[in-house]
Amino acid sequence: MQLSQIYQSVQQDLAKVESQINSVTEVDFPGLAELLSYILSGGKEIRPVLTLLSGKFYHYNLDLLLPMATAVELMHTATLVHDDAIDNSLVRRGRPTINSIWGEDRAVLLGDYLFAKAGEFAAITGNLRVIRLFAQTLQIISSGELNQTFDAFNLEQTRDHYLQRISGKTASLFSLATESGAVLSQAPEESVQALKEYGCNLGVAFQIVDDILDFVGTEEEMGKPIGSDLSQGTLTLPAMLLVEHYPEDNPVKELFDNQDMPEEDKREKIAQAIELVRNSSIEQQCYEFVSDYCAKACSNLNLLPDNASRRALVELADYVVSRKR
Amino acid sequence: MQLSQIYQSVQQDLAKVESQINSVTEVDFPGLAELLSYILSGGKEIRPVLTLLSGKFYHYNLDLLLPMATAVELMHTATLVHDDAIDNSLVRRGRPTINSIWGEDRAVLLGDYLFAKAGEFAAITGNLRVIRLFAQTLQIISSGELNQTFDAFNLEQTRDHYLQRISGKTASLFSLATESGAVLSQAPEESVQALKEYGCNLGVAFQIVDDILDFVGTEEEMGKPIGSDLSQGTLTLPAMLLVEHYPEDNPVKELFDNQDMPEEDKREKIAQAIELVRNSSIEQQCYEFVSDYCAKACSNLNLLPDNASRRALVELADYVVSRKR
Repeated sequence: MQLSQIYQSVQQDLAKVESQINSVTEVDFPGLAELLSYILSGGKEIRPVLTLLSGKFYHYNLDLLLPMATAVELMHTATLVHDDAIDNSLVRRGRPTINSIWGEDRAVLLGDYLFAKAGEFAAITGNLRVIRLFAQTLQIISSGELNQTFDAFNLEQTRDHYLQRISGKTASLFSLATESGAVLSQAPEESVQALKEYGCNLGVAFQIVDDILDFVGTEEEMGKPIGSDLSQGTLTLPAMLLVEHYPEDNPVKELFDNQDMPEEDKREKIAQAIELVRNSSIEQQCYEFVSDYCAKACSNLNLLPDNASRRALVELADYVVSRKR
Repeated sequence: MQLSQIYQSVQQDLAKVESQINSVTEVDFPGLAELLSYILSGGKEIRPVLTLLSGKFYHYNLDLLLPMATAVELMHTATLVHDDAIDNSLVRRGRPTINSIWGEDRAVLLGDYLFAKAGEFAAITGNLRVIRLFAQTLQIISSGELNQTFDAFNLEQTRDHYLQRISGKTASLFSLATESGAVLSQAPEESVQALKEYGCNLGVAFQIVDDILDFVGTEEEMGKPIGSDLSQGTLTLPAMLLVEHYPEDNPVKELFDNQDMPEEDKREKIAQAIELVRNSSIEQQCYEFVSDYCAKACSNLNLLPDNASRRALVELADYVVSRKR
């Protein structure tokens, strides 16, 4: 199933979110306007859709959900801009990154601006619980990313470590999207928690797929180079399983233990690791994790009213398992 | 007059702000805790003092002013961390910068964390006007800084340009500090505007002094290298006056027009510019601007009740004119 089909029930309101996001580019200063126009296009828009769908179970109030969905998408964009600057990434969504065109300094400032703009949209909801949640989520994301820099090239990480890390850096924003939608539609607390958990589980599944695709995807599908996690020293689930399965002569071990090897040798080790994942049961094993988290996400929805939104959220979980980019 | 004397009437409450800021370092993750402990010490604390003093004219409510003063100081710290990362600065407040010890990537993430933490404290006030003001201020600061990167090494800048730039990057946070203090103490709108204007004028004066000290200060007093604005290509008021006064053989012109000159030659041009400012009337002329803005700031206070806080705010303006660091 395609995303556009899953989004159908909120398509009109999503167009309003897009139009709000477009309005962000209307600033007096031409330099900033250019950067904003460049970055605020494209994207799968999963997070704002989660907010809209999560808001459809009780009192759907577009005046509140619209700014929040916008806030969530802007925060996501800001984190991408900072991530790319930090990782010196050159390509994202098939296009050169902000830092590669305008430099790292401007990428940092643009990210700051987007965080602030996102915060302003969150404040428009006038809902203090949601506003605090927004600020706390950014703390979780940035401390999670910081955590990751301290863990770089460290082979002594457990799966719990990994799951905790991706909960912080990815799932927290998914759960902000769903929880805020629920809160803003005056959902009973039990439903708020259910939608929050759904977002969290879906986010973990989504990130594991991202980490799998960094091995088995193509640059064309992904819109960015493959193998970038390994080159950054980030130990993801496929790499962990690789280390467990092949304790001897393991390219990941060799790469992580010899960070000063020549670039050419690094590329070779990464290519070897990719081959091993593709030609083993590791991809399949990773997808079992994904299926488990998606199943948990769907079961979180059980106590909610059965409506088109609930079906869309289930379809979204199915999409996450099968997505290619 | 020393800052500690000026701060006397709010000294006890400032200690509570410091204790709140210290509590920010109490996080589970040791890497983040280390960075927070390092960065959250020192500083003149002018901004939180402005919030406390501005809150003392009507209904002084420490439950609201305390989190806001904390928010303002954390936001200030976050901007310093990002500025240093962007400028590759090595020293701040007489100590190595975060980026010079832990790298630029961690500096970016630490700054993000601090912005988010600041936002959470602002949200604790529960005051939506103040929360939106907070988010808007971060937009003004980051877009002002972005503006500055596009203006780097550009000699075609007017004084208005300069004043607009420093209003954005410095005065906006001063006026957030004062305006929020006024709003949170239920000041009448006229008084809110007066305190906002005071903060804005004081902030402009403060930044002009900073820009003067980058020429006539010492590294020891400033806690950072002198001449750094010129080396970043930032045209400040003293440099502008220098270009106006010496249209021929001007070291600033030569530096800005030949960005690829050898480092040694750059240092010589900067040293020449510093000498010219020190041995001319330029320093004096700049201080006349400072006095004007401080006088405006003090006159903004006229409609407020005459109390110890008002006197402290006047003393703070006097301090800004005469400060050496």
